[in-house]
Amino acid sequence: MRLSINAWLDYFLPAPADLMFALEAAQTPDQQLIEDLLTVGGTGLLTPIAADDGVGRRTWARGEGRVTARYTATVDIERTATRLPGLVADDVKTLPAGVVPYLFPSRYCESDRLGEAVLRDYGDLAGGDKVAAMVAWIRSHLTYEPSGDTGTSAIDTLIARRGVCRDYSHLLIAMARAADIPARMVGAYAWALEPEDFHAVVEVWLDGGWRLVDPTGLAPEEGIARIGVGRDATDISFLTIFGRADLIEQNVSVKRLDA
Amino acid sequence: MRLSINAWLDYFLPAPADLMFALEAAQTPDQQLIEDLLTVGGTGLLTPIAADDGVGRRTWARGEGRVTARYTATVDIERTATRLPGLVADDVKTLPAGVVPYLFPSRYCESDRLGEAVLRDYGDLAGGDKVAAMVAWIRSHLTYEPSGDTGTSAIDTLIARRGVCRDYSHLLIAMARAADIPARMVGAYAWALEPEDFHAVVEVWLDGGWRLVDPTGLAPEEGIARIGVGRDATDISFLTIFGRADLIEQNVSVKRLDA
Amino acid sequence: MRLSINAWLDYFLPAPADLMFALEAAQTPDQQLIEDLLTVGGTGLLTPIAADDGVGRRTWARGEGRVTARYTATVDIERTATRLPGLVADDVKTLPAGVVPYLFPSRYCESDRLGEAVLRDYGDLAGGDKVAAMVAWIRSHLTYEPSGDTGTSAIDTLIARRGVCRDYSHLLIAMARAADIPARMVGAYAWALEPEDFHAVVEVWLDGGWRLVDPTGLAPEEGIARIGVGRDATDISFLTIFGRADLIEQNVSVKRLDA
Amino acid sequence: MRLSINAWLDYFLPAPADLMFALEAAQTPDQQLIEDLLTVGGTGLLTPIAADDGVGRRTWARGEGRVTARYTATVDIERTATRLPGLVADDVKTLPAGVVPYLFPSRYCESDRLGEAVLRDYGDLAGGDKVAAMVAWIRSHLTYEPSGDTGTSAIDTLIARRGVCRDYSHLLIAMARAADIPARMVGAYAWALEPEDFHAVVEVWLDGGWRLVDPTGLAPEEGIARIGVGRDATDISFLTIFGRADLIEQNVSVKRLDA
Repeated sequence: MRLSINAWLDYFLPAPADLMFALEAAQTPDQQLIEDLLTVGGTGLLTPIAADDGVGRRTWARGEGRVTARYTATVDIERTATRLPGLVADDVKTLPAGVVPYLFPSRYCESDRLGEAVLRDYGDLAGGDKVAAMVAWIRSHLTYEPSGDTGTSAIDTLIARRGVCRDYSHLLIAMARAADIPARMVGAYAWALEPEDFHAVVEVWLDGGWRLVDPTGLAPEEGIARIGVGRDATDISFLTIFGRADLIEQNVSVKRLDA
Repeated sequence: MRLSINAWLDYFLPAPADLMFALEAAQTPDQQLIEDLLTVGGTGLLTPIAADDGVGRRTWARGEGRVTARYTATVDIERTATRLPGLVADDVKTLPAGVVPYLFPSRYCESDRLGEAVLRDYGDLAGGDKVAAMVAWIRSHLTYEPSGDTGTSAIDTLIARRGVCRDYSHLLIAMARAADIPARMVGAYAWALEPEDFHAVVEVWLDGGWRLVDPTGLAPEEGIARIGVGRDATDISFLTIFGRADLIEQNVSVKRLDA
Repeated sequence: MRLSINAWLDYFLPAPADLMFALEAAQTPDQQLIEDLLTVGGTGLLTPIAADDGVGRRTWARGEGRVTARYTATVDIERTATRLPGLVADDVKTLPAGVVPYLFPSRYCESDRLGEAVLRDYGDLAGGDKVAAMVAWIRSHLTYEPSGDTGTSAIDTLIARRGVCRDYSHLLIAMARAADIPARMVGAYAWALEPEDFHAVVEVWLDGGWRLVDPTGLAPEEGIARIGVGRDATDISFLTIFGRADLIEQNVSVKRLDA
Repeated sequence: MRLSINAWLDYFLPAPADLMFALEAAQTPDQQLIEDLLTVGGTGLLTPIAADDGVGRRTWARGEGRVTARYTATVDIERTATRLPGLVADDVKTLPAGVVPYLFPSRYCESDRLGEAVLRDYGDLAGGDKVAAMVAWIRSHLTYEPSGDTGTSAIDTLIARRGVCRDYSHLLIAMARAADIPARMVGAYAWALEPEDFHAVVEVWLDGGWRLVDPTGLAPEEGIARIGVGRDATDISFLTIFGRADLIEQNVSVKRLDA
């Protein structure tokens, strides 16, 4: 699937602040960048750095007053829908060193507190079947709507039974890790997402590789262009602000070019 | 300082379980391994893997029944006591890519909730002076004793005003990150620690490098042999158990050989 | 059912401390005190006061050093097992003024956070049927064992899926209140409880009265001698210590005299 | 001080819901009602009930669609500013039975977690001096502004260092109770409050009586007309909704008539 991505950010910074953008689509075997361009107005020089785990890039800037960022890209996605059932869970001691940290709890994914619940509710299942059952539970027991609090964790969401893509992803990640299945969060652009916005999805490590899953069910995996990965939302924010910035406008558009 | 390190772990595993040991001292410019040996009894083959951020090693094993591990090492530490006052904080956008994740909150270090408190209480200070003031506050306001709960976070500790090395470290890390100073946790052997045990300390990134700090004040930085580093306790546990293991005995001894 | 109750407390107070005992069985229409006696050694004068909501008594004492308390009672319980199914929930605006506070969340019963979950999971049921379904869920999804933390709340227990009578009661209370059904906690002696100990159970307000329910299922309602009631464990502790007291020994015995 | 109070509530109820209003000023020795009137439109019959602890009244109604409530009152306040310093704390075992529950933690006042902090920070002070020092700390360390979350507790506020009258009151209550000083929350109308709104303040039990304190310092105690009291915000909400209600408009006006 060939996608045309457009993102537009418009902020006001009352005082000088450092900004870290994570807007640029990653170049990976299953998603090829045809062309892309990030332009930022109202800041000094841009400083690109590598993002975590070799997936994607980040760009630093320092700005003040009105700051705008435009990102445009054409990306080819070569990916089929993830079929979880039947995928085997790898023995933890065979995991690549870089995958091991994704077994552990993180700020918004308190997997250490969910071991008993996951054992009781999903203990009869294994690997991809287990993750598929977790996704099914989440989809049938949560309502997609903001909880009114931006600092919600997986456990908050499990209790509140509502959330947005960020919350759905945190919950699936926490549940998977509680079952000793590595899981990480993916910041992404997504085709066919309604309403159009940045998206957050999950990768679980099964059968020797990362498998992309959208716990919200709102976007097909074949149309997801990954920006970066991390332990949870804290690592993949499309804009991390060191200081204060007031949102003026922000929008995202993802169009399919080949259909 | 030349140290002789001995660690002894004795556990019983009622069912087969995977174990990840983080017992081996790291080889770094400021600590040179003269010799070391990890022997594990009661398990199958050992599988060493690299630890996070290029600091140290981890070793996987799968065991059942009685499992024992012995680690012996001779290490030369070439390090002077950290002098925090006067060290400058680096501009965040100049940080190496590998340091950036240590700006963010983690499972046990909810720095995102401490921004206002740190601004109010330490806003007049900068860099090493700020971290030194945080350390001074922690030392004068906390009592070193277990809280009775092993899942305590930095905020739990800030409220309870008590904890062990793990808790002191989480609190300092959370406070430093809340001030946009990268901070990470270090698992270590420590000379002159009373009582002898594994130790947890902190590294803050100041003036272009990681600076070792023991927020408990119980062990001099010159006698600390680092095992590994991570975002918080979840990354540096000396023994991570995937399954169940009952502690029979465990002890640590660190002796100085050159004085 | 006629019960013979014996409770024995033995504590050491390193410094003078005030103690509030809630050990004495309440005199209510469904439980008649034949005789009872509280004797306390190692303290000054005892000061009895009324307990909350007209159910039961409390006794204050001030002691130092070794303090012992013995309570013996003979109580006639005239109560049949509670039959929840079919009981109607009263319209909230018809509730007696003294019942209204039991609609609200309390320290260990965060019913305000469970509204959506309770609506989704039990929304098709009403009154006693709804409470019975909650009890059934709790009994089949929780394991009766200490969580290792004495400050656990209903939500902690819902997540951890384990607890003791205190935790089971907090969870049922929180779920009932989240469905606008008044619920309160009851401190009690219980016949046939294994192992013998103080017990905590629940009363829900249905069809114009309080209905006793033991969410653990460990003790029949017909053999429960109530001591006092309150919003949660904080109100019904059998011994509240203002200062420090170290437990030496404590035991409870409840025998049936009429069978 | 003679006050003229006007409150106006305008809500829309998409479905039938029960409403409990706590709008009417209490009649107590230090505040005399000259006249007052509550009128509610859009509901059926009003059902008045007593509020907790003999302070004030509550009124139930059942409504649907547009519901409005108007409360007007003339109240004489005979109260001088509370002078905390020098007031003695009563021995807990001499407290009236009705005061005892205010020693305990409640939903939003986790005093059980603050014992060590309060001992360390205020242990040298006693009674009114101790409470005065707590109030001074709160006023100098918190910023009066919404935290963006309506479910914040005393500990949340202590960490976030910001809040509104509800949060300031919860924090003072939790700190006082942690020092074994009874404290309760008061819903009130307040003269000279900017901006005009419902207000929440605190009563601490010192020297044989309840002493009114406004931890925000925004309103003089002499101009506070109490509506009701309770363990925390959960007990004193001016409007508790059993169902859903959307706010259209709400305003409060308190004028002084005698100056």
